Amino acid sequence: MQQYFVEGSLSVDRLYTVTDKRIIHHIAKVMRMQPDDQIELVDATQQPFLAVIQKIDISGTEIQVRPINGLNRQTELPAKPILLCGLPKREKSEWIVQKGTELGADKIYFFASERAVSRWDEKKAIKKLQRLQTIALSAAEQSHRNTIPEIKFLQNLKDLKFEVQATKLIAYEESAKSSETKALVLALQAHQPKTPTYCVFGPEGGISSNEVAYLVSQGFTPIGLGPRILRTETAPLYFLSALSFYFELKG
Amino acid sequence: MQQYFVEGSLSVDRLYTVTDKRIIHHIAKVMRMQPDDQIELVDATQQPFLAVIQKIDISGTEIQVRPINGLNRQTELPAKPILLCGLPKREKSEWIVQKGTELGADKIYFFASERAVSRWDEKKAIKKLQRLQTIALSAAEQSHRNTIPEIKFLQNLKDLKFEVQATKLIAYEESAKSSETKALVLALQAHQPKTPTYCVFGPEGGISSNEVAYLVSQGFTPIGLGPRILRTETAPLYFLSALSFYFELKG
Repeated sequence: MQQYFVEGSLSVDRLYTVTDKRIIHHIAKVMRMQPDDQIELVDATQQPFLAVIQKIDISGTEIQVRPINGLNRQTELPAKPILLCGLPKREKSEWIVQKGTELGADKIYFFASERAVSRWDEKKAIKKLQRLQTIALSAAEQSHRNTIPEIKFLQNLKDLKFEVQATKLIAYEESAKSSETKALVLALQAHQPKTPTYCVFGPEGGISSNEVAYLVSQGFTPIGLGPRILRTETAPLYFLSALSFYFELKG
Repeated sequence: MQQYFVEGSLSVDRLYTVTDKRIIHHIAKVMRMQPDDQIELVDATQQPFLAVIQKIDISGTEIQVRPINGLNRQTELPAKPILLCGLPKREKSEWIVQKGTELGADKIYFFASERAVSRWDEKKAIKKLQRLQTIALSAAEQSHRNTIPEIKFLQNLKDLKFEVQATKLIAYEESAKSSETKALVLALQAHQPKTPTYCVFGPEGGISSNEVAYLVSQGFTPIGLGPRILRTETAPLYFLSALSFYFELKG
């Protein structure tokens, strides 16, 4: 079923008028929905509802929907993963945002790192972030999330303050090469409920030893993600999948 | 370090002449390597070696290398995952092959499924498979695998014979929606060593109830991959990452 994020807060049986042009276009033109068709709506309080379309205005400017009931679903990954990605090349940031959103990232931050080939100045960053936030919205709707991950760009990783109790990890190629296999599992076992899980991923050139030293001084632990060398855009997806497997699937 | 798959079998200190034009071009022109530079070579017996370049012919047609020592590394995912993917749209098959190879797939088979939008006739399949096999080779070298996954296209899933003892799974959207969280973990716990793990993934339109019924009759079990709805090209990556986390990382 199609899902949309809407402004404001919804309640059961109270009619809601959709005015967001993006949603109106999608319902009326892309999906060609009709009155009585059902959709899922997530309101600004992150509450999902099953809703039915009541009326589609002929002029295509207004759609009225009626929430039927609140949905009791948990589609947000526990341990609130925050991806910290060295700025990758070309369209890889878009891929990380789309797939990272599907796989449950709570936030996705890109940062200017020493060995990154890509550079974003302030103007470029604003434009890029708009596009990335749109991708996150669309992927969050498609995957039936209750929230849209926040996408940010940091000119300097040192600008970021980390919660003391949080789990802090570095996906480190040298750890993979040296057959490090315990650190991720141990970190997840020690994870404090309701705190975020940060994980840093290098850009194509990898993370520098300076950057690793700084992160370790901030309480970060290097981890291996298996014995194969993963590309910069693949490692975050492994990490999120592993978190889901650990926290959401049970034997 | 750069890795290449070579024909024939290597042994320590026995000079080997590279004649594969792709590798010669990459060493001499792309990487601009010189004598004494080191590379990794995996021979046809899947044995990896550390090797040193001895001579690069001026005409650029021949490179001589000397294997220094055999590498004792295990970069092949246990439980030999075989992805069975309903043929996806456009370039998604390429993504699945590249990322699936990095994440350790043993084989990747696409099949013509009821709800698939894409169709490959025999001629198109041959051309596509050549390209996909090249992508698998390149991703296997990049991720330091010991083998290159075999890529195939099946006009009918029923043409495939499954090993009786193998683990046989279906990544099923309806399982995700109904909060199925146990089947994957139970299947991995019951996995028989040295047998493959098949997992079927639907195309964009999902897998049909006919297809599910046939697969169940062949001993396949539907599994959920967490509560979020994953796109057709994302689910295989979750599956492979979960297998790596389960079999390769230890607390």
